[in-house]
Amino acid sequence: MGTARLRIAAAVTAPSAAASAAFPADAGLPGWSPIPGGVTAPQGFLAAGITAGLKPSGNPDLSLLLAPEGAVCAGSFTTNRVRAACVEVCAERLQASGGRARAVLTNSGQANACTGDRGRIDSLRATEALAARLAIEPGETLICSTGVIGVPIPMDPLLAGLEPLCASLSGQGGDAAARAILTTDLVDKQIALEADLGGRRVRIGGMAKGSGMIHPSMATMLAYVSCDAGVPAQVWQAMVGRAVDRSFNAITVDGDTSTNDTYLAFAAGEPLGAEHFEALEAGLTAVSQHLARAIARDGEGATCLIEVRVAGAAVDADARAIARTVCGSSLVKCAIHGRDPNWGRIVAAVGRAGVAFDPEAVALWLGDHQLMAGGQPLAFDRPAASAYMKDRAAGTYLSPDPRSGDTVLIRLVVGAGPGAGVAWGCDLSDQYVRINADYTT
Amino acid sequence: MGTARLRIAAAVTAPSAAASAAFPADAGLPGWSPIPGGVTAPQGFLAAGITAGLKPSGNPDLSLLLAPEGAVCAGSFTTNRVRAACVEVCAERLQASGGRARAVLTNSGQANACTGDRGRIDSLRATEALAARLAIEPGETLICSTGVIGVPIPMDPLLAGLEPLCASLSGQGGDAAARAILTTDLVDKQIALEADLGGRRVRIGGMAKGSGMIHPSMATMLAYVSCDAGVPAQVWQAMVGRAVDRSFNAITVDGDTSTNDTYLAFAAGEPLGAEHFEALEAGLTAVSQHLARAIARDGEGATCLIEVRVAGAAVDADARAIARTVCGSSLVKCAIHGRDPNWGRIVAAVGRAGVAFDPEAVALWLGDHQLMAGGQPLAFDRPAASAYMKDRAAGTYLSPDPRSGDTVLIRLVVGAGPGAGVAWGCDLSDQYVRINADYTT
Repeated sequence: MGTARLRIAAAVTAPSAAASAAFPADAGLPGWSPIPGGVTAPQGFLAAGITAGLKPSGNPDLSLLLAPEGAVCAGSFTTNRVRAACVEVCAERLQASGGRARAVLTNSGQANACTGDRGRIDSLRATEALAARLAIEPGETLICSTGVIGVPIPMDPLLAGLEPLCASLSGQGGDAAARAILTTDLVDKQIALEADLGGRRVRIGGMAKGSGMIHPSMATMLAYVSCDAGVPAQVWQAMVGRAVDRSFNAITVDGDTSTNDTYLAFAAGEPLGAEHFEALEAGLTAVSQHLARAIARDGEGATCLIEVRVAGAAVDADARAIARTVCGSSLVKCAIHGRDPNWGRIVAAVGRAGVAFDPEAVALWLGDHQLMAGGQPLAFDRPAASAYMKDRAAGTYLSPDPRSGDTVLIRLVVGAGPGAGVAWGCDLSDQYVRINADYTT
Repeated sequence: MGTARLRIAAAVTAPSAAASAAFPADAGLPGWSPIPGGVTAPQGFLAAGITAGLKPSGNPDLSLLLAPEGAVCAGSFTTNRVRAACVEVCAERLQASGGRARAVLTNSGQANACTGDRGRIDSLRATEALAARLAIEPGETLICSTGVIGVPIPMDPLLAGLEPLCASLSGQGGDAAARAILTTDLVDKQIALEADLGGRRVRIGGMAKGSGMIHPSMATMLAYVSCDAGVPAQVWQAMVGRAVDRSFNAITVDGDTSTNDTYLAFAAGEPLGAEHFEALEAGLTAVSQHLARAIARDGEGATCLIEVRVAGAAVDADARAIARTVCGSSLVKCAIHGRDPNWGRIVAAVGRAGVAFDPEAVALWLGDHQLMAGGQPLAFDRPAASAYMKDRAAGTYLSPDPRSGDTVLIRLVVGAGPGAGVAWGCDLSDQYVRINADYTT
């Protein structure tokens, strides 16, 4: 799996003009360029990751991100009504501080969900110990946990790990931090972008973990974003809400929302003029989308990323709902795994998305192969459409261009409205079932 | 697969008093007894099934159910916004006739969905030809289609088949009719029940097909019910609505709603006194639940039926929503396939069902093994819980007792409310993925 993913794409298919015409132009990313460094690429952010002995495997399991003084922080949390203790602590503290936080500790190995009073006490103890060591307020210290549900954190190794963890904090610590938050992920997930906004460099970095709600009782998608521009807390919160809607709320691996999902975005630095907020939000959205796509691509047993673009809906939210439903359909996912250009399953998924559209207007493209027009099937080159999907499986891992690499692109027009949206998912393989069935037996 | 399903249960587990106490007593079925005959068990109903040459396989593919004069008919149709032509025709005619219909023709092999104007013209032509031959009104003649989406009905063999089909109509035709509606089903699905209501025998029969939205572009769950008691059309429609909510709306195979799902229930006979309506509805619900469970059990690649019972919710609808979400979780389905007593996945699915409940009140049983109390895990005998699930896989196919046979029973208490509900599904196997991936490639 690992090596297959990293193969180089044999061919890049150019979009046909006809197929693209119906779609809003790709927003692109004017001005933002990739840079190394992950969450520590933005100025003033420090990070660290160590092995504290929480995981039996001996892999890194304790991670820390420290934002500069005065940082604002916006969070987005799981909608699952069963929430881990750490999620409650994060949400309460951000609420109480009015969106200010300095540090987030992450332990991987135990989710600390369904652990009752003890789970809450452990979360508070860990953050208080960390705050004392960093000489910051406990109320500005957050914690995320990921791992097995129902298992509490081994507190002795965690508390003993805080000293070496803080000692290794560094402006080059992004890689180590990104590795220490992983559980069953096959690869780490990082990105950093830089732009010139009004004559100054602004950087946004991010790291994430997760591949759905995964592996034997493993839970959690976690994502952390850092930004070295100062933004008022309420503005930052609004930007984060929209960016999460267009990224983490637009992916699906298996439809299972975990008890621990958390997204935390820190911003700290010289205040940015309001005239640059739109550009900043574009960068924040791009960072979030990259991390979200990386999680979908790393879905258990997945052999490709699926990107579904919908245009012509009444409003954007309708288009996103359709895109998500197609991405989440087990039958569509199986068909793509089998490289079967099965348009019937796609249109049936569109129909059950719960939003109004015109069935007689539906047009559908798989890559650049048009399969439907006016709600009815077209004659198409089936072997070529299947070959398109096979090529994608061998493509570059997470190519930034959805028309190359390992992305199977599905485009749908569902009417003449202005609403457009995108969602991402992955194929469903027998490997997924084996991974999730063969645990204790 | 086929033989494994029909093995006899080695052991029947008796429910422990403690585990059962939290649950509403099984409603049971006072007075209703199983009888042979399927849809033709009720007096006056005729049926037939023949091979008309619509399927390349040569299997039976044309089915007819004829109700006595004066029959009322209530329908329930797919909520998918992409509906096959035949679904539109059925819905329009029942609306126009005020719930009166005499006959339903079913062709299997082609779904006649996404076939545009031609699809509608073909549906109308088929029903008009049938009505002429039976000397009934076209407006009281319905049609259901099931098979490949996007493929129109071969009209010549269908029209040529109407003569032999009508010629073989008989009061013993239930079996033949039930076989001719199948597509990829492994077994036919029939039931008939009889009760003494106020000194007269009343019979309800039923047949169904489907195993989710299945096999290469195959669509459709279809169900037909017959009853030899006269019931006012509006009363019958209300009963049918409630029975469908408690049966077909409570199953999930893969979450994909087809373009053709149709449920039609006919009632015709001497008028029944209103004092027996409640008993009649209990029988109608039992027939519908049997057919719905049979469809879930026949889910592609399934090795067992999953029954989830929820109690303690605020209202019944909340309990049903939780039960359906647990049944539909890919991770829960995989865990049960692997016979892994993975309570963390079950409680995480409960949490994302979208309804309010008390996470600290959650109690969970797998069979009679209690895995959680007060929202936290209990120590339990893991090998015994796994063995319970293994025994179920070898159990009697569709045992009427959910505590024996091939049903894995999950029971949840989510609070102290009066709301209770049940849902059914099946496990998710690598076989499901292979069946749905390996079509054209």
